[in-house]
Amino acid sequence: MIGKCNWCSINDVESDAQPVPGTARPGGRTARTRERVLTAVAAILREHGYDAVTVDAVAERSGVHRTTVYRRWRDPGGLLADTLDAAREQPWEPPDTGTLLGDLTEINHQVVAALADPASITQALIAASFRSPAAARALRSFWADRYARAAVVVERAVARGEATARVDARTVVVAACAPVFHELALMRGPAVPGLAESSARIAAAAVAPGPSVED
Amino acid sequence: MIGKCNWCSINDVESDAQPVPGTARPGGRTARTRERVLTAVAAILREHGYDAVTVDAVAERSGVHRTTVYRRWRDPGGLLADTLDAAREQPWEPPDTGTLLGDLTEINHQVVAALADPASITQALIAASFRSPAAARALRSFWADRYARAAVVVERAVARGEATARVDARTVVVAACAPVFHELALMRGPAVPGLAESSARIAAAAVAPGPSVED
Repeated sequence: MIGKCNWCSINDVESDAQPVPGTARPGGRTARTRERVLTAVAAILREHGYDAVTVDAVAERSGVHRTTVYRRWRDPGGLLADTLDAAREQPWEPPDTGTLLGDLTEINHQVVAALADPASITQALIAASFRSPAAARALRSFWADRYARAAVVVERAVARGEATARVDARTVVVAACAPVFHELALMRGPAVPGLAESSARIAAAAVAPGPSVED
Repeated sequence: MIGKCNWCSINDVESDAQPVPGTARPGGRTARTRERVLTAVAAILREHGYDAVTVDAVAERSGVHRTTVYRRWRDPGGLLADTLDAAREQPWEPPDTGTLLGDLTEINHQVVAALADPASITQALIAASFRSPAAARALRSFWADRYARAAVVVERAVARGEATARVDARTVVVAACAPVFHELALMRGPAVPGLAESSARIAAAAVAPGPSVED
């Protein structure tokens, strides 16, 4: 799935799961073991939820020996944390549509896509973060990384004169995305049409040049 | 705790738990039973989390007979759903500070207070909503009620000429609150100073009269 740019590329772990036979895989045996294990974690999470992600189940599904899974990942929290770390390591570049509103809307479309899938692995990981402190820490790191990378869309808008710098860039990106997470991940509502756009529009309007409510 | 106005008044269930001896309690025996049961649910949630909220544990802690708890609430999901329904029934009036920014900031302070408590019952209920479909439905109803009631702060601002009606009132309130939920409930971060204000400011600025980024 090279070239596909997702806010949360966790799905790509799975999409790489079935290499063409004979294809060289980068990273050697340890990397291949990790990929098999994380592919199994993603599949189990998606199909059966957090409670089903056990060392035994992951060993069986991945074909990796139980003692290897145990030694390297220890427990469900370790498995979930590494799933998120793998997602964070995926290349992700924020969009560059030419306008702040366009960029924030595109990021939000990616967030909607990641959350609205009925078998969303992102939703499963969010749910897991309420059970596993290790998964919660990994999810925080994942989002911290994405928001740090996304800040450039605000910085570019400021450079274009399209936005003032009166609000911190990360705050603007979080403001754009947070309503989507609130509606889809916390309220578990449907993805209503226009949600990505309306949330992006509010954040973009708040930093548009001109008088704000109060500086 | 009469007169205290909280976004999430779930804590009030507990604060009413120990009536002054001889005080008349409204609602009769059924209401008293419900209060004892929900007080026990809140205490167990806060102290031990979702997994500890069982019919047996609630019966023991509340002193209400197990068969009564089972007949009326059925399972942990039913107990959590009724806890949220009780919170929704609490009187809550949105603030009326005279400015949209003031009102949204005050709502956000209430949300921060509900989430930042180390033994936050709100956080415990959010976590529970990922385990129990009944709790998830009840949490959605609770938030739907709060956002519907809070919409008046935007309507008043429009009437004062302080805001334009170009964005739906509920969308504005969700935009103000969502970053607080994102940082404290999803990212499980600390309540950084200024979070309530900065999120309120972005939402208020987005509906301030004047040119928006794009209408």
